[in-house]
Amino acid sequence: MTDQMDDRKARASAWFAELRDNICAAFEKLEDDLDPGAPHGGRNPGRFERTSWKRESTNPADEGQDTGGGTMSVMKGRVFEKVGVNISTVFGNFSPEFAKQIEGAEEDPRFWASGISLVAHMWNPHVPAVHMNTRHIVTTKWWFGGGGDLNPVLKKYRSKETQDARDFHAAYKATCDAHGADYYERFSKWCDEYFFNVHRGEPRGVGGIFYDHLNTGDWKEDLAFTQDVGKAFIEGYVPLVARHMNEPWTEAEREEQLVYRGRYAEFNLVYDRGTKFGLQTGGNVDAILMSLPPEAKWP
Amino acid sequence: MTDQMDDRKARASAWFAELRDNICAAFEKLEDDLDPGAPHGGRNPGRFERTSWKRESTNPADEGQDTGGGTMSVMKGRVFEKVGVNISTVFGNFSPEFAKQIEGAEEDPRFWASGISLVAHMWNPHVPAVHMNTRHIVTTKWWFGGGGDLNPVLKKYRSKETQDARDFHAAYKATCDAHGADYYERFSKWCDEYFFNVHRGEPRGVGGIFYDHLNTGDWKEDLAFTQDVGKAFIEGYVPLVARHMNEPWTEAEREEQLVYRGRYAEFNLVYDRGTKFGLQTGGNVDAILMSLPPEAKWP
Repeated sequence: MTDQMDDRKARASAWFAELRDNICAAFEKLEDDLDPGAPHGGRNPGRFERTSWKRESTNPADEGQDTGGGTMSVMKGRVFEKVGVNISTVFGNFSPEFAKQIEGAEEDPRFWASGISLVAHMWNPHVPAVHMNTRHIVTTKWWFGGGGDLNPVLKKYRSKETQDARDFHAAYKATCDAHGADYYERFSKWCDEYFFNVHRGEPRGVGGIFYDHLNTGDWKEDLAFTQDVGKAFIEGYVPLVARHMNEPWTEAEREEQLVYRGRYAEFNLVYDRGTKFGLQTGGNVDAILMSLPPEAKWP
Repeated sequence: MTDQMDDRKARASAWFAELRDNICAAFEKLEDDLDPGAPHGGRNPGRFERTSWKRESTNPADEGQDTGGGTMSVMKGRVFEKVGVNISTVFGNFSPEFAKQIEGAEEDPRFWASGISLVAHMWNPHVPAVHMNTRHIVTTKWWFGGGGDLNPVLKKYRSKETQDARDFHAAYKATCDAHGADYYERFSKWCDEYFFNVHRGEPRGVGGIFYDHLNTGDWKEDLAFTQDVGKAFIEGYVPLVARHMNEPWTEAEREEQLVYRGRYAEFNLVYDRGTKFGLQTGGNVDAILMSLPPEAKWP
């Protein structure tokens, strides 16, 4: 059982690294493909830069132990104002207080968690911002989680009825339908519920999918779904960037984008569970807060 | 007892409004006093604009009842990039969950809270940002709380040894010493502990004072102290603005200011109790989040 679980952990981690490579390649290609006459077309195409970090657990139970780490890939380009594609594999012991909140950890605080997390903030206000994340978590139980959601920064695009929102959802729906008859309905609803800014009384974006604690009893199948969710992100998002990245924008649209990003920062700092999980388990602060926008306004 | 408490509530609220008027007048005078040759000296002096709001309680126990409200005073000027001086008086019933966290509310969820809250984000990176707040809260118990803290935006000023930090602390120390031999030591330490950004492992600023649950048994004295804390804020902060507001600054200093403001936003959204109190009691979101910087960067 332990050997099998070790093999599964290795396979899941390897997948997240492979997906990271594929996403970075696709995003660098978008940087290359920007029209010379488009805004920022005269700048050099951006490239990802990687930084690795080791986790420093603050839990005494982890003292002297390797507790994992991760690699941030960050690009500040001409299409992508700031995009982070982070992978991490962390393990050790949950603090007693935190263990109570995590399935399967109350009886044994040891955990292993691996995943990929991505947030892209774009220069062009016509290109939606985006977030995606998939992860595999192992305590005395195991499960997969993740999803992706689209965040148009201009009010005129903040509707599920736009072509962008339809296309983005369609990519996830095809993937969901191939794995579970009710997956798309459940996971897209879950996404809308999760990415809701309660104090503003408004959704963060136009949705996508969100799932957590996925364990059908068939590990291979649940990994396969999670892999397909990662591929669907590339299929769903890259064409939207290509569709809009050459469009000109106005100063007023830039301003609206910066104000929207303030709301985005509010959501991540007040509500986001991944942010809280990271900050509470001694994750790398720069990696966790890579999601915050390069520039934002609260005028 | 009820009549006496009603009178006390009225007196406390009236003080917060008076202090607001005095602060706004002092800040508008700074706007007027900017040197014509200073950065932004060619712009028109700013003026506060007031907006009132009524509280909409989400607690069913408050249905159909007046639950108070407040007035925001906001100035977007040439010295003050964005400053909010908010007063509010809110009352009603705490939600059962929230009542457990508040002293004297577990046995009776009715509360009354009045206060003034101020955050100033300055154009000039040589002028520190600042926060101050004082409040009077009544449940089955009563107490005062508040304080003020100085937030230099450039690293070179982020030390308690600067003239600005010394002068700011000296104003509060004189006030504290006049009211309690141990007040300054206790309340300045409390300030350093409270305004600490745990995930960054760094203080938000260079301190000041912070006190809460102040009830010496002598209501008049505790109000008098709270009034003096408000006056000390004006004496402590206004001269610092005058000292630096005419200094030129560089683009690099502006950039450093914007990055610092990102950290400031993190603190307020992740840790600040006033922010949480407001969002959880159905306070006015614009008033609560007035503290967020007009512009910030996470590069």
